[in-house]
Amino acid sequence: MKNLPIYFAFLFLTPLTTQAQSLAEKLGYSKEDKLLIIHGDDVGVSHSQNKATFEALKSGLVTSTSMMVPSAWSAEVGVMAKEIPDADVGIHITLTNEWNNYNWPPKAGKSVVPGLTNEKGFMYPDCPPVTANASPEEVELEIRAQIKGANEMGITPTHLDSHMGCIFYGRPEYLRSYLKIAQELKVPAMVNTQIMEGIIKPNKALFEGINLENIPVINEIIMANPEDYESGMEEFYTKQLTNLKPGVHVMLIHLAFDDEEMNAVTAGHDSYHAPWRQADFDFFTSEKAKELIQKNNIKLITWKEIGKTL
Amino acid sequence: MKNLPIYFAFLFLTPLTTQAQSLAEKLGYSKEDKLLIIHGDDVGVSHSQNKATFEALKSGLVTSTSMMVPSAWSAEVGVMAKEIPDADVGIHITLTNEWNNYNWPPKAGKSVVPGLTNEKGFMYPDCPPVTANASPEEVELEIRAQIKGANEMGITPTHLDSHMGCIFYGRPEYLRSYLKIAQELKVPAMVNTQIMEGIIKPNKALFEGINLENIPVINEIIMANPEDYESGMEEFYTKQLTNLKPGVHVMLIHLAFDDEEMNAVTAGHDSYHAPWRQADFDFFTSEKAKELIQKNNIKLITWKEIGKTL
Repeated sequence: MKNLPIYFAFLFLTPLTTQAQSLAEKLGYSKEDKLLIIHGDDVGVSHSQNKATFEALKSGLVTSTSMMVPSAWSAEVGVMAKEIPDADVGIHITLTNEWNNYNWPPKAGKSVVPGLTNEKGFMYPDCPPVTANASPEEVELEIRAQIKGANEMGITPTHLDSHMGCIFYGRPEYLRSYLKIAQELKVPAMVNTQIMEGIIKPNKALFEGINLENIPVINEIIMANPEDYESGMEEFYTKQLTNLKPGVHVMLIHLAFDDEEMNAVTAGHDSYHAPWRQADFDFFTSEKAKELIQKNNIKLITWKEIGKTL
Repeated sequence: MKNLPIYFAFLFLTPLTTQAQSLAEKLGYSKEDKLLIIHGDDVGVSHSQNKATFEALKSGLVTSTSMMVPSAWSAEVGVMAKEIPDADVGIHITLTNEWNNYNWPPKAGKSVVPGLTNEKGFMYPDCPPVTANASPEEVELEIRAQIKGANEMGITPTHLDSHMGCIFYGRPEYLRSYLKIAQELKVPAMVNTQIMEGIIKPNKALFEGINLENIPVINEIIMANPEDYESGMEEFYTKQLTNLKPGVHVMLIHLAFDDEEMNAVTAGHDSYHAPWRQADFDFFTSEKAKELIQKNNIKLITWKEIGKTL
């Protein structure tokens, strides 16, 4: 896992249009404002991830998170979320289980969604086998099962997004279910201009019935890749915060501790692993990050605020 | 959870017959020998449990373990078992999920065995709701799914036993499936004289087709209860090892570390929790335990040896 898969890089291209600038105005800001959600992905995956993510949310720079429902520690998210009034917790729609020794089956149950299940009864480790095996109906059932599961754990999601981007890089029908369900729930589902231009517009007939005009579109989704980790996370994030353009952006980070549990969860991986997540935690709870955000006039926002524009 | 449930205490009564002494002779020992399996329960439940259990197995006094297949860390058992030649690993048939913030669904899948699934899609926290809801057919399906799961993780089980005793305290049909499947696999399934006398003999018609004569029956199953933990584990185990009678016995212990992960797994419980498991680990990797076993002429055996008598 040294490099990001090629299909994943697509998400992080420079935006093609300026459509999302109108989102800033809808939010009550000007077109020149730099608005940023700092988003802790993967909460629920482990106790270490839960503890670090909620600690970072409390410390103030991380403004939002989204939970993985099928993994073993998701109920703890419901418990920890109660400690933060008005916590911004979405659902990190999870179609994969990428870890070697720590596993989960699909939330809907393997016999209900066999196309999301490998020969051991767990989810597949990456998006391509999901695309090859999971029908759009199975993905829709699984998304609904994850939302129901989150509700049962006390979470009313503020938004939807996609673990490892499998919703975006799979069949466009997956994306249709994701947008349709978000509109039913009256919450935003993370999409950027590339997804609008590259997947939705060329398949317009498929998205009939979905109010495309009403979808809040993010300008840039920013995430470190393995080369950025090699050069140092502080350098990467300093550059990103310093050069942030006007518009509405999401910075995807992964917060956990470099501890025994997280090293065991991520065993055999050399990216998105325990020390990577500790580096994210260290930076986004640091004075340096706070100063950079202030100095560069970056306004931190939440998915809940975006949800109010719907 | 201060006290053991009343139905659970039944397992630990003094044996009614001396039937199991013939097991000692079948194993090539005399009727006067004191034979003991020191058994680390619950491996697979967490990384902490896996690490502590395999460390104790390597250190020599713990001779056997059995894995919980539906929990998230079961694949790591397969990986760790490879480090020990001829590791004695059985299946800890799991019908419950007793922890608050850390969960698993049944291995067969919740729509296949809805009677083993609570409203959140996880297993029930204790045996009574299992008995009230799970049909014998569902329990048999689940046992078979757990064996298949263990095989897929590289484990050929040396024996079967029962997490929290739900197989014994539920419907006698559960016990029939457990014994029948063990005979199919040609491995022993843990039962003691109480189970033989109290459940199997009064329901003989139900157990037709099972070769009851061929079942290896354990004399005493020894396990600390919450009062023993309060008085101190060293005192309890010292007494048990010093007073062990001739026969074939199993001492059920729970090995994990008193670390961040295990405290989070067992949060809200004041027995079988992280410090309890650390106390078990400390005692059964100590020089004192080794000396007590030698001084009292206790012979440590494995389930694999018992399996050879079948």
